[in-house]
Amino acid sequence: MKTDVAIVGAGPAGLMLAHLLRQAGIDVVVLERKSSDYVLSRIRAGVLEQVTVDLLDELDLGERMHREGLPHEGFFLADGERLIHINMAELTGRSVMVYGQTEVTRDLMNASAARGVEVVYEAEDVALHDIDNESPYVTYLKNGTEHRVDARFIAGCDGFHGPSRQAIPDTVGRAYERVYPFGWLGILADVPPCNDELIYANHENGFALASMRSKTRSRYYIQVPLDEKLSDWPDDRLWDELATRLGPDAASHITRGPALEKSIAPLRSYVFEPMRYGSLFLAGDSAHIVPPTGAKGLNLASSDVAYLSRAMIEYFKEGRSEGIDAYSQTALARVWKSERFSWTLTTLMHRFPDGGAFGRRMQVAELDYIAGSRAAQTSIAENYIGLPL
Amino acid sequence: MKTDVAIVGAGPAGLMLAHLLRQAGIDVVVLERKSSDYVLSRIRAGVLEQVTVDLLDELDLGERMHREGLPHEGFFLADGERLIHINMAELTGRSVMVYGQTEVTRDLMNASAARGVEVVYEAEDVALHDIDNESPYVTYLKNGTEHRVDARFIAGCDGFHGPSRQAIPDTVGRAYERVYPFGWLGILADVPPCNDELIYANHENGFALASMRSKTRSRYYIQVPLDEKLSDWPDDRLWDELATRLGPDAASHITRGPALEKSIAPLRSYVFEPMRYGSLFLAGDSAHIVPPTGAKGLNLASSDVAYLSRAMIEYFKEGRSEGIDAYSQTALARVWKSERFSWTLTTLMHRFPDGGAFGRRMQVAELDYIAGSRAAQTSIAENYIGLPL
Repeated sequence: MKTDVAIVGAGPAGLMLAHLLRQAGIDVVVLERKSSDYVLSRIRAGVLEQVTVDLLDELDLGERMHREGLPHEGFFLADGERLIHINMAELTGRSVMVYGQTEVTRDLMNASAARGVEVVYEAEDVALHDIDNESPYVTYLKNGTEHRVDARFIAGCDGFHGPSRQAIPDTVGRAYERVYPFGWLGILADVPPCNDELIYANHENGFALASMRSKTRSRYYIQVPLDEKLSDWPDDRLWDELATRLGPDAASHITRGPALEKSIAPLRSYVFEPMRYGSLFLAGDSAHIVPPTGAKGLNLASSDVAYLSRAMIEYFKEGRSEGIDAYSQTALARVWKSERFSWTLTTLMHRFPDGGAFGRRMQVAELDYIAGSRAAQTSIAENYIGLPL
Repeated sequence: MKTDVAIVGAGPAGLMLAHLLRQAGIDVVVLERKSSDYVLSRIRAGVLEQVTVDLLDELDLGERMHREGLPHEGFFLADGERLIHINMAELTGRSVMVYGQTEVTRDLMNASAARGVEVVYEAEDVALHDIDNESPYVTYLKNGTEHRVDARFIAGCDGFHGPSRQAIPDTVGRAYERVYPFGWLGILADVPPCNDELIYANHENGFALASMRSKTRSRYYIQVPLDEKLSDWPDDRLWDELATRLGPDAASHITRGPALEKSIAPLRSYVFEPMRYGSLFLAGDSAHIVPPTGAKGLNLASSDVAYLSRAMIEYFKEGRSEGIDAYSQTALARVWKSERFSWTLTTLMHRFPDGGAFGRRMQVAELDYIAGSRAAQTSIAENYIGLPL
């Protein structure tokens, strides 16, 4: 099989890129290791920056998002007692959209066939070849048969554990990483959220987040040690701890309910440089991971894809390679700023085992300063809504 | 001897407090362990916030400061190459005054006799007694003879190593501390500064600061490991390293000259709570230390003294003790915010041995973000000029 761009991975990054290229008349083939059902079963964050909203609108696939999504004009930081409102709309004139990443993927997936976006699900043993020259190709197994896709470019949208980044020789790239000494224990429940907006809380006991997927489905998290077991956290204990950490005001509005899903995830900051090697371009989690504080993961994938689709369209339609050549540097400039914000918000809002009493007081002082400073609130808000492309 | 307020320490905090109380007709005695010449030989920072300028004006002792001081409307952050201007005047409508702490002390000292501020220099073995009741007293040796000063209140303005804080029982107070894994090597030279404004630089090699005392006297610093020896840093090596760290633009304007003074100082963040115990009130370095990044030390002493003088004047003149009772909490609220800013700026601008490659990239990303964000610049500027009392 021959195509213009072989895309590895059919998560939101791969599918958005595929649709954007297809819309410009460029041929794509998307290879996904898992089944479509499995892809849709992955539960991820759901706060969309304008860059993500714009991409879906540009593809004319934003209709359901605008109907079912919840525009949020602000959010709260809490210090265990007080709620500090960050009014994004007032401070920056912009807002974010609460709409599950799973729903974004579903909307893209549902439109694929009709728009000529070919996705091969359950493509096993995907391997990249000859990426250092202009005739790369990808091989994979499907139902026991080996297939080969020849392309001008390969886009690695296959996440942190996918084969794309690993195809880049060790001597070429450099990884920057920080692993945090705690994880997030999350609970999903069909109960109304305790607040119309998200609450990020830094309590003496540790971090908590009150979030939502819709007006009837809530998503809560608490910081836990990495060696904690799910069996240590029966629902009641988790709800009690959420009430404590979110503070009295939020606690009085919490509706409890059985867990639809409960899991513990580690937190990591990770950036791989460069994001291009020869004919291979990385986008999304394959090149960078942020801790979930601040919800930047999907939105960084969106900005990667926005830069990369423009660059590839210029290449195929106008024969210009400036965009292609600048991609890694352009994308990384925004990646580092989002990494910085995610790291800063994580550092501010979590309890660190080695932070000591002075570290805790610095967090309290910073929240106290933020509560009284319009400049500090504006700085947080402009990062939360997403820095301009 | 009997007085209203016995003040331990004749540095800027003690002398400012003495003058403010005297101006209101309250009797004071100031006890200082060192000679007046020694006190004036101590070289300290020289960036005055409005709070300090206001206090000197209120005492009608600001004439020389306004004549010889250099109003600064901005300063620079540098990342080793680029200079990022923080335009305080434009962002906040306010500025700071560059005027040496030694000069502030000299102005206060010179006015003491004429204004009835009694200062006992070379008062040895100062000891505090009965501070937990309403009749405390201080003893000291002068020329081999023991003296005693009875007072209603004692003000501990005797710095980090003085006897006042140590007079508070261990069970009452709590100290919060962070010691940084590096020191500042400073050089004072009679050469014109390399820039009209201060430059705080974060270079790959570590922090550097270009600062000044006047238009003909410069003060530079570089971050060095704590075990570094002065003999490792002959003048030439130090000037070379300053040129490297401050970046090409600043380097081209550096005038070199022989060192008038060269020293290495450790960096520390420290806060003691509470700032009042019985009849004893702490002010300035006796209660808190900041790393010099951001020049908050003297200015925090000023805000302590502003709060404390008002409270004591209310007590003696109106018989009200609300101010006295609220002093510790009021002063500490501002202390913690300044501690936060000093810690944040120190953390942003220094190389940390355990920061790793990711930590360094976070600093670069933060400087890059600050360079492009008015909100971030405003937040830094409003802290630098000093938060409101």
